[in-house]
Amino acid sequence: MRNVVAELLTIGDEILFGQIVDTNSQWMSVALSNAGIKVIRKTSVGDVESEILTALAEAEKRADIILITGGLGPTNDDLTKPCLAKYFDCEIKMHEEALVEVTEFFKSRGRELTEINRQQAALPVCCEKVTNAMGTAPGMWFNRNGKVFVSMPGVPHEMKKMMTDIVVPKLIKTFNTPAIFHQLIRTVGIGESFLAEKIADWEKSLPSHIKLAYLPSLGEVKLRLTALGENRQTLLEETHSLIEKLKPLAGDYIFGYDENPLEVVMGQKLTEKKLTVAVAESCTGGYLSHLFTSVPGSSAYYLGGIIPYDYEIKMRQLGVRPETLEKHGAVSEPTIIEMANLVRAKFKTDIGIATSGIAGPGGATPEKPVGTVWIAYSDKHQTVARKLQLSKDRMINIRLASIATLNLMRQHLPAD
Amino acid sequence: MRNVVAELLTIGDEILFGQIVDTNSQWMSVALSNAGIKVIRKTSVGDVESEILTALAEAEKRADIILITGGLGPTNDDLTKPCLAKYFDCEIKMHEEALVEVTEFFKSRGRELTEINRQQAALPVCCEKVTNAMGTAPGMWFNRNGKVFVSMPGVPHEMKKMMTDIVVPKLIKTFNTPAIFHQLIRTVGIGESFLAEKIADWEKSLPSHIKLAYLPSLGEVKLRLTALGENRQTLLEETHSLIEKLKPLAGDYIFGYDENPLEVVMGQKLTEKKLTVAVAESCTGGYLSHLFTSVPGSSAYYLGGIIPYDYEIKMRQLGVRPETLEKHGAVSEPTIIEMANLVRAKFKTDIGIATSGIAGPGGATPEKPVGTVWIAYSDKHQTVARKLQLSKDRMINIRLASIATLNLMRQHLPAD
Repeated sequence: MRNVVAELLTIGDEILFGQIVDTNSQWMSVALSNAGIKVIRKTSVGDVESEILTALAEAEKRADIILITGGLGPTNDDLTKPCLAKYFDCEIKMHEEALVEVTEFFKSRGRELTEINRQQAALPVCCEKVTNAMGTAPGMWFNRNGKVFVSMPGVPHEMKKMMTDIVVPKLIKTFNTPAIFHQLIRTVGIGESFLAEKIADWEKSLPSHIKLAYLPSLGEVKLRLTALGENRQTLLEETHSLIEKLKPLAGDYIFGYDENPLEVVMGQKLTEKKLTVAVAESCTGGYLSHLFTSVPGSSAYYLGGIIPYDYEIKMRQLGVRPETLEKHGAVSEPTIIEMANLVRAKFKTDIGIATSGIAGPGGATPEKPVGTVWIAYSDKHQTVARKLQLSKDRMINIRLASIATLNLMRQHLPAD
Repeated sequence: MRNVVAELLTIGDEILFGQIVDTNSQWMSVALSNAGIKVIRKTSVGDVESEILTALAEAEKRADIILITGGLGPTNDDLTKPCLAKYFDCEIKMHEEALVEVTEFFKSRGRELTEINRQQAALPVCCEKVTNAMGTAPGMWFNRNGKVFVSMPGVPHEMKKMMTDIVVPKLIKTFNTPAIFHQLIRTVGIGESFLAEKIADWEKSLPSHIKLAYLPSLGEVKLRLTALGENRQTLLEETHSLIEKLKPLAGDYIFGYDENPLEVVMGQKLTEKKLTVAVAESCTGGYLSHLFTSVPGSSAYYLGGIIPYDYEIKMRQLGVRPETLEKHGAVSEPTIIEMANLVRAKFKTDIGIATSGIAGPGGATPEKPVGTVWIAYSDKHQTVARKLQLSKDRMINIRLASIATLNLMRQHLPAD
């Protein structure tokens, strides 16, 4: 079984100038990957003939499939079609069927067909037309010496419809592609290098057709297993048995196996267990509540929060005892424990969580440098507090403290 | 004045597999364009030595500057460093200064330095170290025959800090790029097309070497003037006189002229006027407070907030009258006015602001569809409420309602 490899070529100055983020190529990578086609390179070039021709030639050397997006508009700065005609050395002629489709498209929208739009139906004679169900510029399918080039519009919904309905099925048929299976494993509460050491032996034991990748982001480390083989079901079973072997080593840190972030997973757990939560957040300043409330339906378990940012407010609105604040300060274990207990009692929820710390850049003391944060979890069985030493960056500290508090809750939710 | 051209090389399977959207290269394109450097190509390759080496060689042929991100992690799938050592044919040795920095980084977080992290301080002897203020993997600056290669981490906040503080200034110095002056004009409370109509004549009057770009984002429209020439001072003066001509046309919507977002500008105004604010937010669920508290020093004017997400909490914790809620509902003018007045009184601040609405997807009624939001502003002189009809998307509604509330405050702050 040989690997079928593809390259993506995005054409357009707007991408090089950073006027738009190229989300097309990410979507296409997933679509191809799910079809067992491996993307080995992505290239973006501007609306410049020489650049486009060079990129096409380089891609043809390396890949079996070259997917091109952009540069198909009706205006003069759109060069993809003439470049492809030049590259495959064939003339551009009016494509009668394409002309009917473009005419229909305009008619259905009660708009008249201008000459400039009419010209969009003219195609290189050496390509097959790929119908554009969502727009006016047809796609083009070229096949030379077993290598396939497909040109598609850059407009995302036009390209996606074309890929899903026509291009991907035709590629699978043309190349009789292998099976591929991706499995995410999401961890929180451990750094990349510490995780790597914990699972080093497991990683060494992976068969050669299953690859592991570390995808760290702020507050979590994703692991991705990619399995390549003949049969998707076999790969799925192999991957799942590998995960079973991973659990004894890193199970405490694993919170999920899909695209759902921690706040969604915690929302599901709270809903299952019919538990409600309230938040008292000082240094996270609303961000922790925002994580909860960004999830649709969160009003079922997140009842509310208080942000006692000011020292006085901690006493007046939340009820933290003046003695506690005077004796230990706002960033201390006794204060955070009171905060978590008080918000749970005031809001009459099953769970109370709290944060208080020095987000920075100001407010630090020799004993409490920037990044010193206390977090706490409280339910009817227990109250637990934890001290964190985070970074020097305010926004990073806000994010990390919020994730750590969600994780503290994850670790202490009542079993039943 | 010759054109300095750059290429971006992104390294990592996660991009080719479509596991992440590459937002780095878009950010870098803008940063380079602002420095008068044109990006002519973007390439993404996987964690494969041969692919990386080929991509480096191709880029060196075409560009003056090659910026590389990704593949600098401590784990085995990270190949950028060994590939660069091989490409420039020099060995990797422990870099004492980098080692000190990595050690400090871990110490400041109270974590022990593992061998795997220690190795991140080992660098090719033919490169200059670029300090990573936000993480453990140092950047690398190579200069060969006047062509510059810079390798940076793929973690966005680490790369951005490195680019802003070190790489871009050093590139400008090294290549003595042409004079370019960018002037932002930031507006809120008006849509792109309405703004365009208001300033159409002014736009027509712009000289050919000064270009205008509309940069709409969620809740605001940025205008960017880009002036290109020999002398920066001249460009600056020309641009400023153009802005004076713009003010009579769009002044009411302009809140700033730099990178500072609305929450920072409002923080400055509150500080100047020595005013304090408290927030009662329901549908925005903590995000409005997060905007305030994301600003360093915000504790001087933002005293705190309450998130009465649950119906009961609106009465019990904030004190909204049951009659008001029963008669008009939580999403109504009488309720939002009470919320703004109550939070101002409870938190003893000069200003109270409030939000209540249907963020969606659930909770809609025939009279109150998803996107219906009430916002209010209250000070000792006045209380004003406004009804918004926003989108069908939850996250967009949370963002837009928060920005609109900041703008309502901007419009009604006491003059003195």
